[in-house]
Amino acid sequence: MDLYSERGFENTTVAEIAQRAGLAERTFFRYFADKREVLFGGAGPLQEFLVRRVDDAPASLSPMEVIVAALAETATVVFDDRREFARRRQAVIAANAELRERELIKLASLTAALADALRRRGVGEPAASLAAEAGMAVFKVAFERWTAERGGRTLAEVVRASADELEAVTATRRPTPRR
Amino acid sequence: MDLYSERGFENTTVAEIAQRAGLAERTFFRYFADKREVLFGGAGPLQEFLVRRVDDAPASLSPMEVIVAALAETATVVFDDRREFARRRQAVIAANAELRERELIKLASLTAALADALRRRGVGEPAASLAAEAGMAVFKVAFERWTAERGGRTLAEVVRASADELEAVTATRRPTPRR
Repeated sequence: MDLYSERGFENTTVAEIAQRAGLAERTFFRYFADKREVLFGGAGPLQEFLVRRVDDAPASLSPMEVIVAALAETATVVFDDRREFARRRQAVIAANAELRERELIKLASLTAALADALRRRGVGEPAASLAAEAGMAVFKVAFERWTAERGGRTLAEVVRASADELEAVTATRRPTPRR
Repeated sequence: MDLYSERGFENTTVAEIAQRAGLAERTFFRYFADKREVLFGGAGPLQEFLVRRVDDAPASLSPMEVIVAALAETATVVFDDRREFARRRQAVIAANAELRERELIKLASLTAALADALRRRGVGEPAASLAAEAGMAVFKVAFERWTAERGGRTLAEVVRASADELEAVTATRRPTPRR
């Protein structure tokens, strides 16, 4: 991550990453399929963690409560002591079109997995898809704010505040007239 | 589009597309940069149309009303007489990972352009980003439903109904306790 920040993702070789980490190049490839995996290797475990939170949530919660609780818990467990890493990862990804695409694919995959998990709980359509999409929108906006902030809020707090703000934003429409 | 549906995007050459359309290959490349452009060439004009609707919306509308009105108007003008085309385009894209990525990039670009347009109207953050993300989530879910339906609803009607459903979904959270 240091190297990506210093000279950009494109200009960093696996040999350099391995050297900086004190590994042989062979050993690097035992842990990572390629140099993108350093940035995206956590996506699989992250998705499993999130989906398990949805599967295990109390039946009394609404779909949106389930999603926001799962995202806030993930924020606490996965991200709260890693703001500096997250900030630098964001900057590396923002600077490279291929990485931005990979990040979009990861978020779309998380959204689909959350919608699947809600449907397993018996949530119908379009509520399951909308709650999953809305939740990921909240998480994305919250993550950007949290990495930009120097303040003391945890990511979980920013996630919950952003969910409140989404609710306020969507509640300002006049009802659609029924035909 | 016929050829993509018949034999898949990967297995269709520009020469075949040009022949089917009664064009020389040279002429094809005067209209499209490559064969993906047949599917995504409308993205630029679509974005301009959407952003202009946001720029021209009455000042009295809330950010979410502006976005939903812009999406519903786009639905009416761009899509309502093209359901069969939209359905086949969806199927071609769903079958090809590269095209799915391109579609995600297009949606992310539209979302960013809508958030920019809201900020130009004086909408603050995170409301601008959340309204743009929520709007695109609504449009995406509505578009999938509309292309899957055989019924008589227009895309604009499905967009407005999905916006109502998003509002209902996000309104079911208990308020976050303040510290």
